[in-house]
Amino acid sequence: MQNSYYADLPVLVTGGLGFLGSNLILELVKLGARVTVLDAMLPLYGGNFFNLEPVKNQVKVVLGDIRDGEKVKSCLKGQKLVFHIAGQTSHVDSMTDPLLDIDINCRGNMIFFLACLEECPDARIVYAGTRGQYGKLKYTPVDEEHPMDPSDIYGINKMAGEKYFLLLGQKRGMAVTSLRINNTYGPRHQMKHGKYGILNWFVRLAMDGQALPVFGEGSQLRDYNYIDDVTAAFLLAGEREEAIGEVFNLGCGEPVTFRRMVEMIVAQAGSGTINTVPWPEERKQIEVGDYVADFSKIERLLGWRPQASLTQGLDKTIAYYRQYKEHYWAG
Amino acid sequence: MQNSYYADLPVLVTGGLGFLGSNLILELVKLGARVTVLDAMLPLYGGNFFNLEPVKNQVKVVLGDIRDGEKVKSCLKGQKLVFHIAGQTSHVDSMTDPLLDIDINCRGNMIFFLACLEECPDARIVYAGTRGQYGKLKYTPVDEEHPMDPSDIYGINKMAGEKYFLLLGQKRGMAVTSLRINNTYGPRHQMKHGKYGILNWFVRLAMDGQALPVFGEGSQLRDYNYIDDVTAAFLLAGEREEAIGEVFNLGCGEPVTFRRMVEMIVAQAGSGTINTVPWPEERKQIEVGDYVADFSKIERLLGWRPQASLTQGLDKTIAYYRQYKEHYWAG
Repeated sequence: MQNSYYADLPVLVTGGLGFLGSNLILELVKLGARVTVLDAMLPLYGGNFFNLEPVKNQVKVVLGDIRDGEKVKSCLKGQKLVFHIAGQTSHVDSMTDPLLDIDINCRGNMIFFLACLEECPDARIVYAGTRGQYGKLKYTPVDEEHPMDPSDIYGINKMAGEKYFLLLGQKRGMAVTSLRINNTYGPRHQMKHGKYGILNWFVRLAMDGQALPVFGEGSQLRDYNYIDDVTAAFLLAGEREEAIGEVFNLGCGEPVTFRRMVEMIVAQAGSGTINTVPWPEERKQIEVGDYVADFSKIERLLGWRPQASLTQGLDKTIAYYRQYKEHYWAG
Repeated sequence: MQNSYYADLPVLVTGGLGFLGSNLILELVKLGARVTVLDAMLPLYGGNFFNLEPVKNQVKVVLGDIRDGEKVKSCLKGQKLVFHIAGQTSHVDSMTDPLLDIDINCRGNMIFFLACLEECPDARIVYAGTRGQYGKLKYTPVDEEHPMDPSDIYGINKMAGEKYFLLLGQKRGMAVTSLRINNTYGPRHQMKHGKYGILNWFVRLAMDGQALPVFGEGSQLRDYNYIDDVTAAFLLAGEREEAIGEVFNLGCGEPVTFRRMVEMIVAQAGSGTINTVPWPEERKQIEVGDYVADFSKIERLLGWRPQASLTQGLDKTIAYYRQYKEHYWAG
């Protein structure tokens, strides 16, 4: 499965011990890339050494924070491609500790980008943006031209970070791409809490035979991508010339209601129950209503299309956690 | 000239020793408000004790930075209205020192807003936004619905700051208004450098008998407001119920080309010459083309309309600096 672009390519993945990063790294290693991983292993997020167990002897892992300029610079030397995935990732925490979100997602992103300009100005950078940058939608499906008016501090700062990268990339001649990721689920996601990654969290609740709360009617539409499809999008974004300077939405093409997603998890796990409850205040504050993505731009320019149905993705997800539960359930 | 709303009203003005802040304070004092001033007197910006000379015994001046949470809290106790004008204000510096811009305009704004929530949750806040939040215009005149895609880090962070205030204001029940200010000129602006406030800087060059550089043809349209009109908009935004939760553009209604503005300065100053030069690279990078504002929203909701013509504003500006040159020319 070698690929002439990725074979021997020096690649840095930030947040590489987390969900998106580790799945991406497994593919990069298959493709023959020379991977360096930078991860701060911040306790609240998804970093987990077990995520990279299958390739632990084939990648270089550096423990460090994107806010540590000297550490970052040492990792960036000689890189040709950077997948920049590290960040504060909890919507809820961004509202209770907005200064931490600013510190990581504004200051940290800028420190990281300035280091890229200094150490590897000819490298390409793929930035992990988020559907949270749009906030409550004015129309669906949401395309990349939709105004951005985030409903939480996380969304505001991820938007600012994306703009830093695209603006400075354009002005200083660095090739930047941003993928605005929607709800993604699958193996290697943290299963310790439900502050983000709600689908994975519900898989845990179901597997534990617990009640899965559905707020209100659960009729809001969601657009879930299986992790392998998101990994494929990152690989295309890191390789294809057409991606330079662009932002792309990801999406699944088959949005489901929140309640339907919960029903499918309970059915496929064969355990757990559904519990309809009123909206909790902290969630209501940041709930954005229906989210359906228009991903025709990445389909047109990069030829990306999601492959996994929700049924297929859930099957693989549940199977993974059945096998490796011990590595994810513990705090 | 007492006014029942402002009479005895406890008001905090951040950046109150600078251009916008000091002119606003002179009016607030006339209206009978009880004014506290918070200013960090950062050396590169427009803070100048002489700006408040006429009211120095009628206001309380606190030297402090919006990034200093304890200092901020001590100033916010008991306030009923906050005009939050302090910030990093140079487009050019935001590109050469983006981390400083993030520190002041992201982190500092959040520290300030969290302190407001703690100390004066019932106060109203008026945030000084900027036309720079829009970036290069997709259409003119620009209304408040125009997408925001700033051309410099300053614009990105002022946008993020505005979104922090509006979002948290809405969620935590604080009354926030943002005025997106366009190019403003007049008395009490710093005259030490031309990094921002180019019209004032050109007034200095003309008064000094120097050459006023016009980049290229100078055909880009600009929308200049005289300071007294901007002050009037702040006073309305701080008083009127209709302003709560809203953003408003300011504008002059009579855009002129950059070259015409320069010609008028030279003519009215009676000195200085025009020097046509190619665009310098650092300016070209952040030049956004024509800027013409649609200010019909503030006209409709608050009854604001600019009163001063460019000729009238320039007359008053030149007269002020002729009288008080010694307080502004020196470093």
